[in-house]
Amino acid sequence: MLVIGERINGMFTDVGQAIVSQDAGVVRDLAEKQIAAGARVLDCNTGAAAEDRVAAMGWLCRTIREVTDLPIAVDTMNREVLKAGLDVAGPTAFINSTKGSADMLDDRMALAAEYGCRIVALTMDEKGVPRDADGRMEVVAKIVESSMMHGVDFGDLYIDPIIIPVNVPDAGHYPVEVLKTIEMIKQFGDPAPKTTLGLSNVSQGTSDRSLINRTYVVMAVTAGLDSAIMDPLDTELMDAMITTELLLNRMIYCDDFLRAYRMSM
Amino acid sequence: MLVIGERINGMFTDVGQAIVSQDAGVVRDLAEKQIAAGARVLDCNTGAAAEDRVAAMGWLCRTIREVTDLPIAVDTMNREVLKAGLDVAGPTAFINSTKGSADMLDDRMALAAEYGCRIVALTMDEKGVPRDADGRMEVVAKIVESSMMHGVDFGDLYIDPIIIPVNVPDAGHYPVEVLKTIEMIKQFGDPAPKTTLGLSNVSQGTSDRSLINRTYVVMAVTAGLDSAIMDPLDTELMDAMITTELLLNRMIYCDDFLRAYRMSM
Repeated sequence: MLVIGERINGMFTDVGQAIVSQDAGVVRDLAEKQIAAGARVLDCNTGAAAEDRVAAMGWLCRTIREVTDLPIAVDTMNREVLKAGLDVAGPTAFINSTKGSADMLDDRMALAAEYGCRIVALTMDEKGVPRDADGRMEVVAKIVESSMMHGVDFGDLYIDPIIIPVNVPDAGHYPVEVLKTIEMIKQFGDPAPKTTLGLSNVSQGTSDRSLINRTYVVMAVTAGLDSAIMDPLDTELMDAMITTELLLNRMIYCDDFLRAYRMSM
Repeated sequence: MLVIGERINGMFTDVGQAIVSQDAGVVRDLAEKQIAAGARVLDCNTGAAAEDRVAAMGWLCRTIREVTDLPIAVDTMNREVLKAGLDVAGPTAFINSTKGSADMLDDRMALAAEYGCRIVALTMDEKGVPRDADGRMEVVAKIVESSMMHGVDFGDLYIDPIIIPVNVPDAGHYPVEVLKTIEMIKQFGDPAPKTTLGLSNVSQGTSDRSLINRTYVVMAVTAGLDSAIMDPLDTELMDAMITTELLLNRMIYCDDFLRAYRMSM
């Protein structure tokens, strides 16, 4: 499992304030803590706090680069903000993300090819998020076609089937449909595209966020999830993910398996 | 999910001592606590502490009956001990369990038919526990055939695909094979036989028992598990199971979903 640390996001109060006051220490500290906890990619999102989001993205990425050469996931739907991030983050970056809609998909795939970087593609198009796994797979087909047309390698393509908060009315079936979609993507060609998930979204607005997140990560990893944008500082969440990997026979048991896994991340 | 409480078992020190000293209060207390925590069947196993296991099983079942009319799972491989339990427990009882081997399967199915009770059947035969899901399904076929021959209803048949501790050398693939077996059993006829699992066995002898148990319960319930012999007094384990049911869309989210589920058990 590739852990993409979600904490450098202006929607969190500490990061939002750090962007406004240009307090690099907060960002560097979150980068280092997430890496120590197992993140191997750092997501980077300015949130809404910044007046100039282009400048803010450049500053965030440069600040992260002061402490690590690990990949940065440039998290924005805005093209100029995205480019400002990619220019700093370099070829190991992730574009996070493109929708599967015609107005965005080909443009972002072309950018991924131009920068030689990886890309997260959401299974949503002009009509929004499909209700079921079959609908999501129709968008997957469009995403895969576009990636091939632009010469983006399957190994650089991460498909996110989009999880909806479990408290949204009439959305109770989404967690199951997302699991089915992950299973179906992993059968889509050999090698199959990779999968990722904005995990914390499943618990947005609920009263037991960590419990819901760590339960769903077990389900999603078992379904074949390759990666998640998640909070590596949530120790119980990471423990649940590692224990799932153990039970899927991806590591040999030892009494210290949690530490052994973290050392190998 | 039908929770079969595992705590009234002579292998636990408190119960072993209670059997020796005929301390009914310990047994009644464990029965009441497990029921309050969500158990709807109480497993009952004399363990090795009792000198006279036939007498001990009768005493344990009578003691449980002092506080509840809920079903008792009479947990023994010994025929005389089993009958002593069934005679007290009555027609709501579970025979826990029979192997799929010729020397035991037909005899125990005949007993289930005679008592009109339910039965747990393990997917192991003369050759032991099969290494993979296909091997387990061969035993499932024998179990189902025997149940039909004796007129035991599918609704009264609980198949346990046998989980092996994750720390056993060369057994790292068992958790995955058990998940596959659960999925395959749920496709075996309509209605399919029910499934159950001696869940705690997955973590026997490991250093993080509760973490491993609660991770595996999420995986197994997602695979289709109908029931487990487990510790309802492990609150985190129960919370993980309930949250899995929520994410499988078997209940509507509310901020108090853990309590709401427990009230409906």
